[in-house]
Amino acid sequence: KLNRVRSAVAHLVSSGGAPPSRPKSPDLPNATSAPPAAPPQAPRSPPARAGSGGAAPARTVEARASFSRPTFLQLSPGGLRRADDHAGRAVQSPPDTGRRLPWSTGYAEVINAGKSRHNEDQACCEVVYVEGRRSVSGAPREPSRGQGLCFYYWGLFDGHAGGGAAEMASRLLHRHIREQLKDLVEILQDPLPPPLCLPSTPGAPGSSDSSQLVGPQSCWSSQKEVTHESLVVGAIENAFQLMDEQMARERRGHQVEGGCCALVVVYLLGKVYVANAGDSRAIIVRNGEIIPMSREFTPETERQRLQLLGFLKPELLGGEFTHLEFPRRVQPKELGQRMLYRDQNMTGWAYKKIELEDLRFPLVCGEGKKARVMATIGVTRGLGDHNLRVCSSTLPIKPFLSCFPEVRVYDLTQYEHCPDDVLVLGTDGLWDVTSDCEVAATVDRVLSAYEPNDPSRYTALAQALVLGARGTPRDRGWRLPNNKLGSGDDISVFVIPLGGPGSYS
Amino acid sequence: KLNRVRSAVAHLVSSGGAPPSRPKSPDLPNATSAPPAAPPQAPRSPPARAGSGGAAPARTVEARASFSRPTFLQLSPGGLRRADDHAGRAVQSPPDTGRRLPWSTGYAEVINAGKSRHNEDQACCEVVYVEGRRSVSGAPREPSRGQGLCFYYWGLFDGHAGGGAAEMASRLLHRHIREQLKDLVEILQDPLPPPLCLPSTPGAPGSSDSSQLVGPQSCWSSQKEVTHESLVVGAIENAFQLMDEQMARERRGHQVEGGCCALVVVYLLGKVYVANAGDSRAIIVRNGEIIPMSREFTPETERQRLQLLGFLKPELLGGEFTHLEFPRRVQPKELGQRMLYRDQNMTGWAYKKIELEDLRFPLVCGEGKKARVMATIGVTRGLGDHNLRVCSSTLPIKPFLSCFPEVRVYDLTQYEHCPDDVLVLGTDGLWDVTSDCEVAATVDRVLSAYEPNDPSRYTALAQALVLGARGTPRDRGWRLPNNKLGSGDDISVFVIPLGGPGSYS
Repeated sequence: KLNRVRSAVAHLVSSGGAPPSRPKSPDLPNATSAPPAAPPQAPRSPPARAGSGGAAPARTVEARASFSRPTFLQLSPGGLRRADDHAGRAVQSPPDTGRRLPWSTGYAEVINAGKSRHNEDQACCEVVYVEGRRSVSGAPREPSRGQGLCFYYWGLFDGHAGGGAAEMASRLLHRHIREQLKDLVEILQDPLPPPLCLPSTPGAPGSSDSSQLVGPQSCWSSQKEVTHESLVVGAIENAFQLMDEQMARERRGHQVEGGCCALVVVYLLGKVYVANAGDSRAIIVRNGEIIPMSREFTPETERQRLQLLGFLKPELLGGEFTHLEFPRRVQPKELGQRMLYRDQNMTGWAYKKIELEDLRFPLVCGEGKKARVMATIGVTRGLGDHNLRVCSSTLPIKPFLSCFPEVRVYDLTQYEHCPDDVLVLGTDGLWDVTSDCEVAATVDRVLSAYEPNDPSRYTALAQALVLGARGTPRDRGWRLPNNKLGSGDDISVFVIPLGGPGSYS
Repeated sequence: KLNRVRSAVAHLVSSGGAPPSRPKSPDLPNATSAPPAAPPQAPRSPPARAGSGGAAPARTVEARASFSRPTFLQLSPGGLRRADDHAGRAVQSPPDTGRRLPWSTGYAEVINAGKSRHNEDQACCEVVYVEGRRSVSGAPREPSRGQGLCFYYWGLFDGHAGGGAAEMASRLLHRHIREQLKDLVEILQDPLPPPLCLPSTPGAPGSSDSSQLVGPQSCWSSQKEVTHESLVVGAIENAFQLMDEQMARERRGHQVEGGCCALVVVYLLGKVYVANAGDSRAIIVRNGEIIPMSREFTPETERQRLQLLGFLKPELLGGEFTHLEFPRRVQPKELGQRMLYRDQNMTGWAYKKIELEDLRFPLVCGEGKKARVMATIGVTRGLGDHNLRVCSSTLPIKPFLSCFPEVRVYDLTQYEHCPDDVLVLGTDGLWDVTSDCEVAATVDRVLSAYEPNDPSRYTALAQALVLGARGTPRDRGWRLPNNKLGSGDDISVFVIPLGGPGSYS
């Protein structure tokens, strides 16, 4: 998403320094398949931490090679080389032998056609056990209160400007989520509404009688009811932020490269939480019907948020950019003429007289896949990018990016799902060339060719989706059956069965 | 929307000054029915103004009594007194004799049950002719280019803290819209896409060959296509802003009292534009189906925008408020405990340790009709309110309010409408006690009792809707047939037929 406009725009922004050098990580494919994932039943516990402060839950990141594929692919060194081959673009899936992914989840991926050195997508699929947090004093809770919680977790991470952020997020984001849920283990299992206030006294029970704490001077006639569901949403939101902060802390020592979009699914206590920060997408296909479970965050969809920020904090524009949008670049000779523009409060367009400030480069420009913030980046939410600066300038872009996901909730218990009902997650490599309807058609076509209880059908579906977006090499390019160009991007797909044989267990 | 929480909260915010005195306008009912509306075919032209600057299109507002009703009601002095009677709450509609409203629009209103001294709702319905703007030099365009445009206009204005803003908006907002459209008269009638750039040279045609102006250094591969529709949207948006700025300029001399929500419909060149700033609502009922045409802007629906502003500009909180949301007021004795909160980036909730700053009053508090910004106001968009301050403080609230409407577009040519298809506009007095479905049921019930070509059926429907929301006096209150309380608020309703006998002409 970074590359295309960068060179074209280099001479357009004012200052003339060299572009920031981005250190390349050594290419050590053999090093990456070594450390196996900890078994999900007994993940390594991070050091206990008190309160809800910002301490990192996971161990300090060791310096790692930036080229790795998800461990559940169980790639041999030779397989890893094939997965890294831009010419062949072999579709990768977990082996049909051995342990399946939870819920018989299907997965497939393919590397890009040369856009970046390695596959910058990453993926993670885990069952995560959440132990209730020990009290602040360190004394364990009574056993009766100590029942933990399990959640199922799927994550797709689409990296840009390097593979480091996506790789780090795929290893650690679910641990941040676990850490945020630790405080909630008892509360979520209690049918009563969550307590509004928790005492700080060591060892005291979490569900204190907070109602007594309401003084007579409260101006609200009633307290706001907070649901269990909204606590899980808040936990996921804060986990994204803590993951992003960890990347900021560790980038100096360990070179967290670039940034990544993150699309994450958490299944907990009967509900599916889909959290999206970036331009990946999730849809549910249920009885042939499409239910969107995310929306994309791009310079176009977030234009008004970005413009408002530039308007309220003009120092973030560094005198190089204007928060106004124009339908094309304004030329100096047009000074005094009237041109179409959009302000942060507008969805329509109007004419304004061109002034000197309007000759600055627009904060948001371009359309569709070419839309950019500060002429540089095509996604506006995600993790990392702490080093990202405007080309040939020192202006940081991170202040305009948000690490917060939008979380949508789907209650699995409200509908009796059949084995053909699936949740499909894909990075933009899939969706750039495949519509929701085409995905639904492929779901129908592939799944109906397999027995409902055949657990390999979801992997076959994921492969079909990746193949359908990649195409086949023809006429010096990857082409789809309709002769249009296939996606030259990295493509990664999860197919999560909602009523399959192994679901919810 | 202002009153309920104000007194309760007075002692909670820090500084201890007296509440700002609000000057009352003299009660001069006889003075208000005097100036009849200018005939829509030939509205008085404001002085021509050059460029797209912020000059006011309308004459300076004369000091007027704040109590008036829409001129199209044609109220006699006696009728005006009856319309102002809180005890009787007689439903008012235009007389069945004489000229009908355009499109045979139905209208009905009723005063509140004592909540404020007068009816603070206002309404306007006009046919507005837009003459193309004369060129900057003052020379008239050639006649061939000078064909004007007509638009149909309906506006509902729900005032608060005084009737001045609503009254002023009902008289002037459509003139601001006309002024914004003057630049577009030729462009909107030209089938070619709007020119991106207009020359400033006097007398030069508006549709210059702007494509030549694109230099080779443009970083966009293509220009952004701007539609005619989005120009109308932009014109309406800017008209709202200019109306608001005019209120700010004139309030010193002429006491523009309070503020108002504004819900406006413009029909122009086959399309209906519904612009809403506040908590009024518009729905289309088409063949029994409900199509929402607006959404409400309240402290709850705009929580994240408000919190973000408070976070980015903490000086606007004056040390008295916190941008964080809590489910109830935090008590000083809870310092150090952990309480549920929501930050500007969150839709879920999480626990945080209470610190000293969290004892400040939350920027957004309360639920439903009791939700407030700065413990004061229950709507977050609208016109006016330039004087509004936090009770017993000098902190201005206006920076948190937006005067920009959300504009939705409905293409009337895409569907063959029948006489029972209507656009219903109502102030919150209607919607507080009436659901969309109940309105649709009333549409069906009332319209089916009249002949399709009876033009009085839409007024009958508007009256039925107002009556259904007001109820009848019983058990010391206004009650609905189900014995629930009716609305004690001002109630105003427009019923605009989309396929009626007089539509579009």
